[in-house]
Amino acid sequence: MTALAAVRGERAARVAWARLVEPGGREVAARIAAVGAEEALQSIGIDSVASTRMAERLPELDVERDFQVAERLGARIVIPGDDEWPLGFGDLAAPPVCLWVRGPADLGEAACRSVSIVGARAATGYGVHTAKDLAAGLAERDFAVVSGAAYGIDGAAHEGALAVDGVTIAFVAGGIERPYPSGHAGLLERIRETGLVVSEVPPGSAPTKWRFLSRNRLIATLTQGTVVVEAGLRSGSRNTARLAGEHLRVVCAVPGPVTSAVSAGCHELIRAGATLVTDAAEVAEEVGPIGELAPRKEGPSTPEDDLGPSHQAVLAALPTRKAVTAEDLARRCGLGAHEVRGALGALDVAGLALREGDGWRKPAVRR
Amino acid sequence: MTALAAVRGERAARVAWARLVEPGGREVAARIAAVGAEEALQSIGIDSVASTRMAERLPELDVERDFQVAERLGARIVIPGDDEWPLGFGDLAAPPVCLWVRGPADLGEAACRSVSIVGARAATGYGVHTAKDLAAGLAERDFAVVSGAAYGIDGAAHEGALAVDGVTIAFVAGGIERPYPSGHAGLLERIRETGLVVSEVPPGSAPTKWRFLSRNRLIATLTQGTVVVEAGLRSGSRNTARLAGEHLRVVCAVPGPVTSAVSAGCHELIRAGATLVTDAAEVAEEVGPIGELAPRKEGPSTPEDDLGPSHQAVLAALPTRKAVTAEDLARRCGLGAHEVRGALGALDVAGLALREGDGWRKPAVRR
Repeated sequence: MTALAAVRGERAARVAWARLVEPGGREVAARIAAVGAEEALQSIGIDSVASTRMAERLPELDVERDFQVAERLGARIVIPGDDEWPLGFGDLAAPPVCLWVRGPADLGEAACRSVSIVGARAATGYGVHTAKDLAAGLAERDFAVVSGAAYGIDGAAHEGALAVDGVTIAFVAGGIERPYPSGHAGLLERIRETGLVVSEVPPGSAPTKWRFLSRNRLIATLTQGTVVVEAGLRSGSRNTARLAGEHLRVVCAVPGPVTSAVSAGCHELIRAGATLVTDAAEVAEEVGPIGELAPRKEGPSTPEDDLGPSHQAVLAALPTRKAVTAEDLARRCGLGAHEVRGALGALDVAGLALREGDGWRKPAVRR
Repeated sequence: MTALAAVRGERAARVAWARLVEPGGREVAARIAAVGAEEALQSIGIDSVASTRMAERLPELDVERDFQVAERLGARIVIPGDDEWPLGFGDLAAPPVCLWVRGPADLGEAACRSVSIVGARAATGYGVHTAKDLAAGLAERDFAVVSGAAYGIDGAAHEGALAVDGVTIAFVAGGIERPYPSGHAGLLERIRETGLVVSEVPPGSAPTKWRFLSRNRLIATLTQGTVVVEAGLRSGSRNTARLAGEHLRVVCAVPGPVTSAVSAGCHELIRAGATLVTDAAEVAEEVGPIGELAPRKEGPSTPEDDLGPSHQAVLAALPTRKAVTAEDLARRCGLGAHEVRGALGALDVAGLALREGDGWRKPAVRR
């Protein structure tokens, strides 16, 4: 057991804070921001609510053991001021006091070009397919893909990034050593091998409802934007999207059938101002640096595209075999012969009409 | 044959214009607007392009016969100034010179509360279902449903309105007596019996490509808004939507799977500023008078909704059977005992927690 007075140094003090309080508390965050974690820790007892809460956990505090556990897990404890500390968390009223981080990627660096992909646990096959596709496309564009390792959309996002050897980051709500959900133990292991698994609560912590809610603010603010792939009307993903918007991050949502309950939350987000996205290029255009423009969606272009409507009408009426006169064409397409003659001249120049004696037809092979 | 000089009166002059020129010409529209249809007709020959075009059709002109044909078809010829003339066409640079109208509804009146529903001919089952649903919902809200009688979305929109005995209006690109497409002859017949079939080109006219394009401007401006249900990237419906937007009408689009080619046009419209809509209430909110608000989409609400996150965490941790102490709960949900005691007090008042001896549990039957 560590007596509070024995906790020395900013890093140790932050580990102690992580043990003593639940994540996301603004009161504690404000005090740490004002006087530093170490001094804030020594001043315990001044504030009654915080001190009561903390006093109950104090007997179990053992910062030395926490450092040993981190080392044994191959985890590093990252605090503000470290190179790896993500810039984005500077926007939070209550940033994490510290982070437990496992995996070979550099959190701060990966965060600089990253997108969160979140969504329903009860995803449809369509949602899972789309999440994987988006994540793979973004990873191929060198974005780190951030999510929460849950079943459904979260898992599909991580899988999509892994499938193209991209960097993916899982923010978990419990301790980083706890595979949650347990069915994603293998997935979390693979994420840890190439990307990062991150938590703001100490090893051994259970993933409580409150910690899930707190965790969402980290997913929302680490990245430049959040994409919701499928979400019901009362979904945690909409909460993450709301937090992203409040912190001026890009909020995107993927549409789906209006008959699908797990697309209803996405449609509400789009109606409220989120950007509708259909592929990774469109997401990259939203969250990437200026100039990363998605190709405009157009059907295949043909020489006819630049023609005016009367020219198009004449072209459509031109026979492929037996040539017809301009007067016949005028009758066929309901235009004046004068106008048809003008159109034929233009089509001739464009190589789209061929004169044959007194008549006109389409050139033999065009497409 | 009618000599031009023998055409007397504004209505007869407009019928003559409809025979002599293709719809949508701005030159003719401007002249008619300046001096009236009758005088404009007498001044033929002053302008060379218009006169050349018209001269070719002049030999076949027979306005008397046109009035007889209209009467035989049970059609009325409606011109600006008539009670039935739709106000919306006043926004067009080239309004129709006149309209052939068949059916019991009043065009001007129906237009005052109307929505256009358009989309792909090659619609999916999802699109057809959604178009019918939207049209039925709008017809039930006393909107006239306007479309173009094509296969796919157009036909489904008319069918949806008919299914609930609503008013539906078909704007056709050829003469009103021509069932086009022929597979919709029965549908057009049913529309004519209860709603309206309308054309700006005289009976006997073929539905040419140019006339389809011209017809779209009528669908776009008759109504207060246009809903695109499914549209490919190169779709005539996007053209109608563009025209609606240019004339300051509401433009809505229905989302669909990002994997569906016939939803791609809708998604592009939404990305360009069209309103995403998922049901008739949302469309009515956009196009109806102010105050016609769609119910906000929310999941079912529960007493827990108003609780703060720590209260929700305590509630989630409360057992249903065997009561547990506040200290046990604090451990279970990772909160301070002080905070848990406060939450239990609030939950008790709300009837969501029950004290039992030293412990707490959920009340027996709540839902």
